[in-house]
Amino acid sequence: MPLPKRWLTSCMFRYNGSSLLIDAGEGTQIAMRELGWSPKPIDTILLTHFHADHIAGLPGLLLLMGNADRTEPLTIIGPKGTGRMLSAVRTIAPELPFETRAVEIEGNEQHFSRNGFEITAFRVQHSILCYSYRIEIRRGGKFDVERAKAAGVPLKLWNPLQKGQTVEFEGRTFTPDMVIGPERRGIKVVYSTDTRPVPQIAEQADHADLFIAEAIYGDNEDIRKAKSYRHMTMPESAELARRAQVKELWFTHYSPSFLHPERYIDAAREIFPNAVATKDGRNVSIPFDDE
Amino acid sequence: MPLPKRWLTSCMFRYNGSSLLIDAGEGTQIAMRELGWSPKPIDTILLTHFHADHIAGLPGLLLLMGNADRTEPLTIIGPKGTGRMLSAVRTIAPELPFETRAVEIEGNEQHFSRNGFEITAFRVQHSILCYSYRIEIRRGGKFDVERAKAAGVPLKLWNPLQKGQTVEFEGRTFTPDMVIGPERRGIKVVYSTDTRPVPQIAEQADHADLFIAEAIYGDNEDIRKAKSYRHMTMPESAELARRAQVKELWFTHYSPSFLHPERYIDAAREIFPNAVATKDGRNVSIPFDDE
Repeated sequence: MPLPKRWLTSCMFRYNGSSLLIDAGEGTQIAMRELGWSPKPIDTILLTHFHADHIAGLPGLLLLMGNADRTEPLTIIGPKGTGRMLSAVRTIAPELPFETRAVEIEGNEQHFSRNGFEITAFRVQHSILCYSYRIEIRRGGKFDVERAKAAGVPLKLWNPLQKGQTVEFEGRTFTPDMVIGPERRGIKVVYSTDTRPVPQIAEQADHADLFIAEAIYGDNEDIRKAKSYRHMTMPESAELARRAQVKELWFTHYSPSFLHPERYIDAAREIFPNAVATKDGRNVSIPFDDE
Repeated sequence: MPLPKRWLTSCMFRYNGSSLLIDAGEGTQIAMRELGWSPKPIDTILLTHFHADHIAGLPGLLLLMGNADRTEPLTIIGPKGTGRMLSAVRTIAPELPFETRAVEIEGNEQHFSRNGFEITAFRVQHSILCYSYRIEIRRGGKFDVERAKAAGVPLKLWNPLQKGQTVEFEGRTFTPDMVIGPERRGIKVVYSTDTRPVPQIAEQADHADLFIAEAIYGDNEDIRKAKSYRHMTMPESAELARRAQVKELWFTHYSPSFLHPERYIDAAREIFPNAVATKDGRNVSIPFDDE
């Protein structure tokens, strides 16, 4: 439930002019506006599952994007049933100046490439079919003069090869790997709410730059309730972060009855030190590593 | 569009333990909570029309009512298509502990009685099929001793007759009107947004206690835009209030571009003096007349 000072959980990624949004509960468009972020460049919406606190904001959000004169198609990726859900949303928001496309995830894990975002949807364990998402930005290798010289690549081919083109020249085939070093470390964020702490989450989040995870409660006192509703607590998410050796952990998706997450953060930091009990509007820019 | 400090337009009536809500844009449940009003006793929701700023909050609202353990059925009255709309809403909010019923208004005017609310839906002039609502609380006559004596009603029948029962006694039929005076003035509120100022509105609002009307803009400078989108301006609504001789007028449903309604209220009061440029959370208790 949204609370007067706490919006529903949603997460937006912005990279290279394209935005990607995970989930859109009621009020997401307002929270976005409070942050000063435009909904217009959202090319992809990922849905974790179909509980209304994750989707009821879609009609309003789509209309807002329409009001911003978006004309490019929008892709909504989610569990089986996303097509039917999108039809329901379009009944409420029928007139949009852009096309909407539903893509339903197949199986336990599926990969999608969207405008530079490498997306892995992986199934987690909630009361209904639910996915978490690994979002990566890949980073190509650096141009390597020594490598190019060693491979005997003519100077005039360096530029097209660096751009990723394969070139036939004087009877020889030149490929980009002749001038470009190995792929460098990119950026990895894993987003996981509405699930029990299954091992796949730690595997997917392995060495992630940022791990965003739910904290339905602050401790394990109500662990039975967390288990029966298929959520994870702050200590459980911290334990996943520790196992995955992520750089940073953000807690989110608090129960409406869990009013003071900050009071539990010290205990969570004993399990995983670099943890933050986020509030609305939390955001960070993650740069590529220096190299 | 909801703005960070301005929710979408919605109106709740509370009478005798039953609540009635007109429209539910995105965030209505949060606005309601800010006011400390419970969604649980909402037995009736009236929809003016199907633009998303009036309906996109329904899935979240219904879920909130479910979370509050409501079990009584909920009736949603609206234009033709309300059944289809409710199906879409139920796709987003499928699991509710109460039944939801859709009632589609037929023709240009229709009357409904719901838990003491006498509701008249009347068609207005918007870009799509749209209704305004007259909500009345009727007030029966007073028990009239003189009348009862004059009609020769035996003392022992006064009580059942006063309760509205018709009684056969000693071969005679006694009816409530023998002991009860004429119906007294009740309460009348008319709610009208998303329409051009058609004469029916003034007719329905005749001598209303409260007339709630839209003010898309503060003056008639942008009257062409108001006309083309089928809305009414502050002066237009004030003129309807003047013609209807209502007791009080509340402006609402401002354009997102109309940021300071209070700056235009003096001009509106030259047309109709008892006018208020409402803000979120405005509420009033309307008592029956003393008598």
